[in-house]
Amino acid sequence: MKTIRIGILGYGNLGRGVELAIRQNEDMELVGVFTRRDPSTVQLADPSVPVYHVQELESMAGKIDVLILCGGSATDLPVQTPKYAKLFHVVDSFDTHASIPEHFARVDAAAKSGNKVAMISIGWDPGLFSLNRMMAGAILPQGQTYTFWGKGVSQGHSDAIRRIDGVLDGKQYTIPVEQALEAVRSGKNPELTTREKHRRECFVVAADGADQARIEKEIKEMPKYFSDYDTTVHFITQQELDKNHSGIPHGGQVIHTGKTGVQGEHTHVIEFSIKLDSNPEFTSSILVAYARAAYRMAQENLVGAKTIFDVAPAYLSPKSGEELRASLL
Amino acid sequence: MKTIRIGILGYGNLGRGVELAIRQNEDMELVGVFTRRDPSTVQLADPSVPVYHVQELESMAGKIDVLILCGGSATDLPVQTPKYAKLFHVVDSFDTHASIPEHFARVDAAAKSGNKVAMISIGWDPGLFSLNRMMAGAILPQGQTYTFWGKGVSQGHSDAIRRIDGVLDGKQYTIPVEQALEAVRSGKNPELTTREKHRRECFVVAADGADQARIEKEIKEMPKYFSDYDTTVHFITQQELDKNHSGIPHGGQVIHTGKTGVQGEHTHVIEFSIKLDSNPEFTSSILVAYARAAYRMAQENLVGAKTIFDVAPAYLSPKSGEELRASLL
Repeated sequence: MKTIRIGILGYGNLGRGVELAIRQNEDMELVGVFTRRDPSTVQLADPSVPVYHVQELESMAGKIDVLILCGGSATDLPVQTPKYAKLFHVVDSFDTHASIPEHFARVDAAAKSGNKVAMISIGWDPGLFSLNRMMAGAILPQGQTYTFWGKGVSQGHSDAIRRIDGVLDGKQYTIPVEQALEAVRSGKNPELTTREKHRRECFVVAADGADQARIEKEIKEMPKYFSDYDTTVHFITQQELDKNHSGIPHGGQVIHTGKTGVQGEHTHVIEFSIKLDSNPEFTSSILVAYARAAYRMAQENLVGAKTIFDVAPAYLSPKSGEELRASLL
Repeated sequence: MKTIRIGILGYGNLGRGVELAIRQNEDMELVGVFTRRDPSTVQLADPSVPVYHVQELESMAGKIDVLILCGGSATDLPVQTPKYAKLFHVVDSFDTHASIPEHFARVDAAAKSGNKVAMISIGWDPGLFSLNRMMAGAILPQGQTYTFWGKGVSQGHSDAIRRIDGVLDGKQYTIPVEQALEAVRSGKNPELTTREKHRRECFVVAADGADQARIEKEIKEMPKYFSDYDTTVHFITQQELDKNHSGIPHGGQVIHTGKTGVQGEHTHVIEFSIKLDSNPEFTSSILVAYARAAYRMAQENLVGAKTIFDVAPAYLSPKSGEELRASLL
């Protein structure tokens, strides 16, 4: 079997996760990591894998099958995905939901111009959660779908806390409200406000002498980020934060309840849930499986931008259709 | 939009569920129900839908887009699916796991000879559970997948009870063992025996004067069905059985736990679970969504046998790719 040659662009948490995930897949090899930094300063988990400056990436056309884009959605991916989709099959985790249609159109045009497959918005939300929302709604159309996130670290909310005057460090957890989960699972189709669905818990390291009451008030009243939620603030030491809150766990669930029968007398609950020790490593594992799908779809002469909705699941597995039917159906 | 014209072959619990599910989908119309019985004896939920004898089915080629096969896996589907896949796009719920490869081959040849799409083994297991087993394993290959069934009624086990001398009626529930679920969710990858995974609970109506101790012993010692499980037997009246155990609920979960990181230091749990008031109505709803997929794949000139692994999820939804990306991704 020919191995799938993978390149990684960007070596933050996600790029590092992709490097580790590739090791778990025997049909793949990592050709190199590409970075905007000085390559000599980038330390991979496997030092035998070459690190290149991003400027060398275009010259690698033909040497890489699938490029996994590990940059951010705000400024990196809107430029990088269309640019590299002309040269390689690509996978990205573009997650700015409102901009997906525009991103799709630009990437689709680029990928088609280069006869490539470009998977966009791969991950768990958008990604596996979207898939479960869509499938559950198609199967039980007289129903309602709910998405809960957490318990997990929100990078954006943690950053917002750290920007407050007098805050040295901080971490924010998004947590689904247990009563809301129970009400949804019961099939009652509750109408839930933002506050009723999730709560927020913050662990904050304040500077010596900083006014903790003022910091707590600023957090709780921060528009968009916290003001619509019940928020708890704990002040702790840097040592405690490093010891107990250095991970990047996350999770969540998509719950769909629907009715069937002559008069909707039967209720069904479909629930997809994840509980992750490492959010970036899980997302990376999804990106790698969809890199395989991109490669295999290209072998069948498919081209253009694809989302998780467009990928027949069999493409994700290294097994043949025959093996899948015999062992997993 | 052109509606998708559906036919139903077989009007038991599944066929009836398909009739009800079609009503929930505006892009579909039910052309007719086909039966081996005298059509005048078959009472549909909607009396305006025609009931035909199965002999008339072949003459309906061109008037039905997708035929949903609602017969049993033991004797009906091995004959019916290849036969009708030459004339119509078809969907079946063939669930004899060990015979799927053979069934696939026969249906594939038939469907290709008629330029049709044939979806086989659609439902929740095989079906949605297979999909979740496969995808979770592809995403987290260093992991283990567990399937639990229940709490729900097993028709086969209920039938086995009813065949015992002195038993007038009976119902059997398959129930996952809570400690096993907890051990799996913890990520410990336990090795579980059959007895450790599921238990069985029976509600039995005994004939007047029948030896209940003997019946209970016969149930508990029945090879394959009960002897490998911890089984509880309750003797109740026919009235109680009819009142409290007349439904066909079911459910279950697929749980995959996998490791990532430099040395597998991070554990992730992916869980897909369902809780169904009516097993046949839920299965029927899945069949109907995959009937749409069969029709739409055929519009794109795909042919042959397909399993749930081969169907790009977008085909399940009446929404366009554009709408899906804008609203559900």
